[in-house]
Amino acid sequence: MTDTEPRTATLDAPAHARAEAWLADFEEALTAHDIDRASAMFAPTSFWRDVIAFSWNLLTVEDPDGVRDLLAATLASTAPAGLTLTEPPTEDGGVVTAWFTFETAVGRGTGVLRLIEVDGRDRAWTFLTTLHELKGHEEPRGTRRPKGAEHGSSKNRSTWMERRRSESVSLGRTTQPYVLVIGGGQGGIALGARLRQLGVPSLVIDKHPRPGDQWRRRYKSLCLHDPVWYDHLPYLKFPDTWPVFAPKDKIGDWLESYVSVMEVPYWSNAEATRATWSEETGEWTVEVDKDGEAVVLRPTHLVFATGMSGKARVPEVEGLDVFRGDVHHSSDHPGPDAYRGKRAVVIGSNNSAFDICGALWENDADVTMVQRSSTHIVRSESLMEYGLGDLYSERALAAGVTTEKADLVFASLPYRILHEFQIPIYEKMAQVDKDFYDRLERAGFWLDWGDDDSGLFMKYLRRGSGYYIDVGAADLVASGDVRLVHGQVTRLTEDAVVLDDGVELPADVVVFATGYSSMNGWVADLVDPETAARLGKCWGLGSGTTKDPGPWEGELRNMWKPTAVDNLWMHGGNLHQSRHYSLYLALQLKARFEGIKTPVHRLAPVHHTE
Amino acid sequence: MTDTEPRTATLDAPAHARAEAWLADFEEALTAHDIDRASAMFAPTSFWRDVIAFSWNLLTVEDPDGVRDLLAATLASTAPAGLTLTEPPTEDGGVVTAWFTFETAVGRGTGVLRLIEVDGRDRAWTFLTTLHELKGHEEPRGTRRPKGAEHGSSKNRSTWMERRRSESVSLGRTTQPYVLVIGGGQGGIALGARLRQLGVPSLVIDKHPRPGDQWRRRYKSLCLHDPVWYDHLPYLKFPDTWPVFAPKDKIGDWLESYVSVMEVPYWSNAEATRATWSEETGEWTVEVDKDGEAVVLRPTHLVFATGMSGKARVPEVEGLDVFRGDVHHSSDHPGPDAYRGKRAVVIGSNNSAFDICGALWENDADVTMVQRSSTHIVRSESLMEYGLGDLYSERALAAGVTTEKADLVFASLPYRILHEFQIPIYEKMAQVDKDFYDRLERAGFWLDWGDDDSGLFMKYLRRGSGYYIDVGAADLVASGDVRLVHGQVTRLTEDAVVLDDGVELPADVVVFATGYSSMNGWVADLVDPETAARLGKCWGLGSGTTKDPGPWEGELRNMWKPTAVDNLWMHGGNLHQSRHYSLYLALQLKARFEGIKTPVHRLAPVHHTE
Repeated sequence: MTDTEPRTATLDAPAHARAEAWLADFEEALTAHDIDRASAMFAPTSFWRDVIAFSWNLLTVEDPDGVRDLLAATLASTAPAGLTLTEPPTEDGGVVTAWFTFETAVGRGTGVLRLIEVDGRDRAWTFLTTLHELKGHEEPRGTRRPKGAEHGSSKNRSTWMERRRSESVSLGRTTQPYVLVIGGGQGGIALGARLRQLGVPSLVIDKHPRPGDQWRRRYKSLCLHDPVWYDHLPYLKFPDTWPVFAPKDKIGDWLESYVSVMEVPYWSNAEATRATWSEETGEWTVEVDKDGEAVVLRPTHLVFATGMSGKARVPEVEGLDVFRGDVHHSSDHPGPDAYRGKRAVVIGSNNSAFDICGALWENDADVTMVQRSSTHIVRSESLMEYGLGDLYSERALAAGVTTEKADLVFASLPYRILHEFQIPIYEKMAQVDKDFYDRLERAGFWLDWGDDDSGLFMKYLRRGSGYYIDVGAADLVASGDVRLVHGQVTRLTEDAVVLDDGVELPADVVVFATGYSSMNGWVADLVDPETAARLGKCWGLGSGTTKDPGPWEGELRNMWKPTAVDNLWMHGGNLHQSRHYSLYLALQLKARFEGIKTPVHRLAPVHHTE
Repeated sequence: MTDTEPRTATLDAPAHARAEAWLADFEEALTAHDIDRASAMFAPTSFWRDVIAFSWNLLTVEDPDGVRDLLAATLASTAPAGLTLTEPPTEDGGVVTAWFTFETAVGRGTGVLRLIEVDGRDRAWTFLTTLHELKGHEEPRGTRRPKGAEHGSSKNRSTWMERRRSESVSLGRTTQPYVLVIGGGQGGIALGARLRQLGVPSLVIDKHPRPGDQWRRRYKSLCLHDPVWYDHLPYLKFPDTWPVFAPKDKIGDWLESYVSVMEVPYWSNAEATRATWSEETGEWTVEVDKDGEAVVLRPTHLVFATGMSGKARVPEVEGLDVFRGDVHHSSDHPGPDAYRGKRAVVIGSNNSAFDICGALWENDADVTMVQRSSTHIVRSESLMEYGLGDLYSERALAAGVTTEKADLVFASLPYRILHEFQIPIYEKMAQVDKDFYDRLERAGFWLDWGDDDSGLFMKYLRRGSGYYIDVGAADLVASGDVRLVHGQVTRLTEDAVVLDDGVELPADVVVFATGYSSMNGWVADLVDPETAARLGKCWGLGSGTTKDPGPWEGELRNMWKPTAVDNLWMHGGNLHQSRHYSLYLALQLKARFEGIKTPVHRLAPVHHTE
């Protein structure tokens, strides 16, 4: 085959030939720096999501024009090559899906291509490019794993334990971490493990006494709402004996073991109290209270892994100082043991509110839930079956869909059209669980399915709130075992919650399950409000739906990618996101550590400060 | 196909047809209880190894006569059925190898068949049958994994943590373990994890402060001599970032994490001081010193997992009380730090002796090795490449040979002929490493390759001693950096070791790297010498080679199988054996716990008391 021979296969060719031909054509156009030709290979409505492979950013460009812009800015420095199918492409409903690998000037990547026919030609509908390793900095795994024992004899060599001790003694004292990760939950730990593997000097600090306490200290009935297949951390998967929905203390123990096994550099009992950036030195100065001792760290990069939920939000109501019972935010709720026989009022009707109401009821408290606005509820079983089952389940595993593959499938669906994939899933749930929803509505519960009926996952991405994954407590509301009232809280008296319609709810304990503010609140506290404002709102897509104001962003705001604040990064999310996106954040930090050029294309403008 | 139609395929048929036909014929003979026909399907020289599927024992029968005896005793109660190929059989050098599953009256099994042509018919040359689960008692894994969260609401239910705490408070106090495992190294931990999974109330006790201390407390340069692929524990594999030869402290940390993650019921700081069996109650009474408190346990079964190496053996030499320096067995050697610039004499020339000599030399001690008898040495690289590479390596993994599969391949090679497979491997090593061996011989080192040149693994199985896996220290002996002398130690003076030829070796520290006695020494200490004698020697095959007196046993003496002492079991071995054989030991205990009949065929007679 010569260079000039057309490679695009005929449309009745098998999926393999079609995908192979498109990739070959595309590579030829890229190699020839023929940006017009390359962008014309995309459908009029199309999406290229690039995860640090071309753009050193997480971004999604749209349509041939967007592709043209991306390539114009990045093609020369990226030098993509070697686009190669890694498994037989498939065809379903007119869409050919193909998995491929490729190289860039500095690394190796993995991609997913979806082809559709437009005007008799195969064009890309969706295109995902992700970088998964840097050349010359491959991770020491599998065939590259370390030898451990150093065979041969040499004078005065040190053991693994001696090197670990020596690192531990010097880190943060005579040596500085290049990256400081604030927060040692699943996000910080996953990132810490990846940075350790990549040889980037790092430190994860956390205020709790032990790794895993982030989970242990939460209300005692808490179990993960996501199933095990969705929750693996990098490198070390849960054994197949692991429960589907792990109890919080078991996850806590796992995280603690993980820190040990993966040698994550980790300080417990360490709270950052102040951080300032110096333009002159190109370093952060971070004051840390470590077990009561003041330690100053000077990392080059600062990562907030303090939870995508941000800081606890308690509405400003009168009488918090007057109320004689216990009052706390859901994140500080100790569990039901102290409230047997007491009157509990839980403000809110999302996940935490339901979990806490259920546990209080089980422990013979008298429980009232105050619903302030409508809530989206899905049954856990239905979410598992219809929402996650194709990607994260025993069924998926049996079909060859590993966690790693599922993550890339998920990543390959452009946020812009993700709701279109989601709506039918929730239509199905509304149908199969009709009785369940009818019971809730008869009890007066305000239900919704998201602004566009796209359900739970879109709510999670857009606003990170507004839903409950039902594991049983919804029936307590439907049956009236948990009393349901509606309204806004205006004040507390000595022994009651007063709503805006004047109703008084007698209470011995009040729980504000009222959610969290944007993550940049942590930045305001630790750095300063100006820096937090410059960073802007975190999370959300700019969908123009409730609590997710536009304009459209294309990606989650500020997450795992360069921000408007130099050398400051935001990391977080559920276990799936902590696992998957920690790879790309770690590679961005590794590249900077090694002095590899990382020209960031189209740093996202900031539209909202909180 | 009718019952009378012959099923044995022609010999030029593909491997698949030949294996399928043999299995179908064999199953038909079994179903018809036609023991003559079934035994005639074995070659005149052939081996059936059964691991608890037919015999509730670990045993190997030989030739058609052995098969006839086994079937006559076990066929009716076993009721085997459903012999089904699980993957395409292969043919190599005239041998067809086939993997199959089968059922028995009480469980499900996995087998490996090797067919050869004898007189124009396919006959079994080797046949392995193993039980891997009990019907109705399948492990809660994968699709059967526990749910974790209990969806729905019920009053006063307990959390995972509350149940764990409650179990921990009651176990050994108000509730008794059905199985007590003495020793919490890899063997005890692996067995404890399996028993937990199988729902058998168990307890592992260990005298050290923390799980993993069995490794941590050993000499500081110690790394595993076996590579990572060989060393996985059940359920939770090392991540692919794990070093090939893990340093002892890292393994220690892994074991500690493993105990937490797998919820192994484990007491640290707990030493059994006395055990007595009561025929009347059918229970052991075991006195345990738990953190200084005397606790009495009453388990039904007692498992010694105190190390296949048994108790440290120190030769009876005069002057141990006269010597002014440090003197200790290799198992108590603290590492080289205290001996910089000192004169060290290490008695012995096996693994520990070499490791300790190497580390002492690296720390600038003046080191002398006393070789008492010849030693088999193989270079670690060569052992990996030629000895283990086909089964336990990245290469094996890439070829689809998982750890579980490799374990069964290994188990399918009859001990009687295992040396025949081993001899060519060591011939190869002798050839490729000729320079290495020449250097050692020139230095006067006494080398051997085992009585029949079958090398390391046979020495390990026959006597558990007599070799060094070279990781570098052999060159120190070859170069004279570590001084080599030969002889037997007769006595110590105040400052020297005196050999039988009168030579005096000045010494500040003397290390007896003189090996271990049989495991039943632990039984003598904890129970009584009479019981230890009744149990008899542990380990070894009865090969009639050095330190492994005949008669031929067919299996490792007393390991993982019923012994002459009721309700007493021996567990141990390297990480590979701890992993694999803990399954069969756990199933034997589970069956007894559930009251499933376990008629033991041909309990091995005891020929040697130590």
